[in-house]
Amino acid sequence: MQLFNHIVKPTLLLDENKTRKNIAQMVKKAKISRVELRPHFKTHQSAEIGGWFSEEGITKITVSSVDMACYFAKNGWRDITIAFPVNIRQIPEINQLAGEIQLGLVIESLESLEFLSSSLDHPVQVWIKVDPGSNRTGICWENVDQILQIAQQAQCNGKILLKGLLSHAGHTYHAHTVEEVCRIHNESMNRLRTLSGELSSRGMAGLEISIGDTPSSSLCDDFAGTTEIRPGNFVFYDAQQLMIGSCTAEQISVAVACPVVASHPERNELVIYGGAVHLSKDSFVENGLTKFGLVAFPTPFGWGRPVESAYVARMSQEHGIIHIENGIKKIKIGDLLCVLPAHACLAVTLMKNYLTLDGKLIRTLNS
Amino acid sequence: MQLFNHIVKPTLLLDENKTRKNIAQMVKKAKISRVELRPHFKTHQSAEIGGWFSEEGITKITVSSVDMACYFAKNGWRDITIAFPVNIRQIPEINQLAGEIQLGLVIESLESLEFLSSSLDHPVQVWIKVDPGSNRTGICWENVDQILQIAQQAQCNGKILLKGLLSHAGHTYHAHTVEEVCRIHNESMNRLRTLSGELSSRGMAGLEISIGDTPSSSLCDDFAGTTEIRPGNFVFYDAQQLMIGSCTAEQISVAVACPVVASHPERNELVIYGGAVHLSKDSFVENGLTKFGLVAFPTPFGWGRPVESAYVARMSQEHGIIHIENGIKKIKIGDLLCVLPAHACLAVTLMKNYLTLDGKLIRTLNS
Repeated sequence: MQLFNHIVKPTLLLDENKTRKNIAQMVKKAKISRVELRPHFKTHQSAEIGGWFSEEGITKITVSSVDMACYFAKNGWRDITIAFPVNIRQIPEINQLAGEIQLGLVIESLESLEFLSSSLDHPVQVWIKVDPGSNRTGICWENVDQILQIAQQAQCNGKILLKGLLSHAGHTYHAHTVEEVCRIHNESMNRLRTLSGELSSRGMAGLEISIGDTPSSSLCDDFAGTTEIRPGNFVFYDAQQLMIGSCTAEQISVAVACPVVASHPERNELVIYGGAVHLSKDSFVENGLTKFGLVAFPTPFGWGRPVESAYVARMSQEHGIIHIENGIKKIKIGDLLCVLPAHACLAVTLMKNYLTLDGKLIRTLNS
Repeated sequence: MQLFNHIVKPTLLLDENKTRKNIAQMVKKAKISRVELRPHFKTHQSAEIGGWFSEEGITKITVSSVDMACYFAKNGWRDITIAFPVNIRQIPEINQLAGEIQLGLVIESLESLEFLSSSLDHPVQVWIKVDPGSNRTGICWENVDQILQIAQQAQCNGKILLKGLLSHAGHTYHAHTVEEVCRIHNESMNRLRTLSGELSSRGMAGLEISIGDTPSSSLCDDFAGTTEIRPGNFVFYDAQQLMIGSCTAEQISVAVACPVVASHPERNELVIYGGAVHLSKDSFVENGLTKFGLVAFPTPFGWGRPVESAYVARMSQEHGIIHIENGIKKIKIGDLLCVLPAHACLAVTLMKNYLTLDGKLIRTLNS
């Protein structure tokens, strides 16, 4: 418990063993599924943790912004896809990156393609963003004409190396069961394969398919036709993923240690120093209750299982309100509780640094 | 529009004139209401913006963490209340601060009081946190016995300078009309005056009352019996405050400029580079719709009025999905839109720096 003695304020704890196991497991899953793993580094955002992926043989990565691509390029990564509709205002940075590394970009309009065609100084790989049904962004998978037109035009420019179709079935995040995740995944896969077949029959053969979200990469088996998967969250998992069924509680490898500052046993509530500026306002719904995180006690080895029927019920800027049914009177002001965040990616962005269970500080691009 | 030509990625814009007007207006309101304004600096988190308050004669401030108190103490502030239940794990920092400045702390249990009594090296002002009905934290205003017991015990220690009762009627944030805000405010004020009268009649006279939230400080008139108010958000206001009725759209003095990266006219949606890592996942509900921000166009003088029936409808880590009814086809990939954030305090925490409309960078404690 020596680690916890030195923690005085909200601190993002990282269980390195669990994290390395999560990485190894996804590497193995990708091998079995015969797809390349191009992990999304927007979750951990850390050069040091990136090194743990290198040790598992990973050489290609995904990021979500030009800044993140620059950070990982500086830290030695040489093949990076920015899986976000290209932000044409950052063309100078894009050109610089493309001169240094194998850069992958994502487009979903002729407008962006034409801009790139006239502005690129170096070759880049280009993926066409296809929406398999998530309604976030991308061209609808049924819109074959538009996708074909973009693909054909992309092939007319020597600096544009058309790679294929890139999708994110983000609607798996709203699933509540493994079956639901796999139903969405299989539907998305079928749609992409149908689209690919249509394109082939119209002369646009050989396009690769890149997909990737943590629920389907963790839970599903059918990746036929896919070249690569790009999950990110699996490196740590979190309470949302636990609810979906993507992981077990034991696999969640980050927690925010938060001091208890007030106790209200009359309404089964504790107040922690740990709020929206530490954990984010992201949440999930379980049994009709909105929850901003789960709660575990510190142990000599990290943290224990999530406490039954305890959760972060409300949140303001620095306050977290924990609902806890049993044993509240045993918890004292100044004690630490470990919160398993609803959404690890956002907690990492806010906390900026990790503290491993053996007391090592790990930095991120926001440190 | 020269300012906007240089913006390539999500950028927190600050209208200095509007901000200074918001400050001046609240200073004036406090004077008219005969209360001291001890503004909460958790919203702007910036030494430079703190200077604009100094220019208006402000000398006493509120913060929400020990770290924020240290930052503003280093930047010359000499009277700081940490309006958060004291985090006893940070007693070394508290002792250091208390040796340098007039420090105010908030307690709500005998446990915290006893800890302070045995651990303080220097005198501090102590406020008892009273819950006037918000159910976040604090001792319920009806619990006179407990409050009296803490007050009496606080008076037994020479290092503890008992100041009075401190409240935050945070439930005004859930109000939807000016009348509702004032009803909650008046109810809270009456409860605090009742409590104060009870305590006086039982021998505990002379306790001050400190309250503070932006809706009631902006909208209500009855502050009789109150010594000080501690609003924070009013320095910028935001879309949540606009919905409550605390401000006009013209008073909102921060906006996040975000590049458009994709357009989906078939469903009236634009995708911006600007997501939960820029604006936070905080939201408000209007006409049954959850909104993460409002949308305005850049103008030569900053940004215009919020666009009718446009709003940030969904949000992921870096993506914002804007719903917009009219004129979507005039908006091009690479254009900038200004998002008035749902909650300015969280957007500031995430964005870390401001860019003023005349192109000046302003830092925060997170820079």
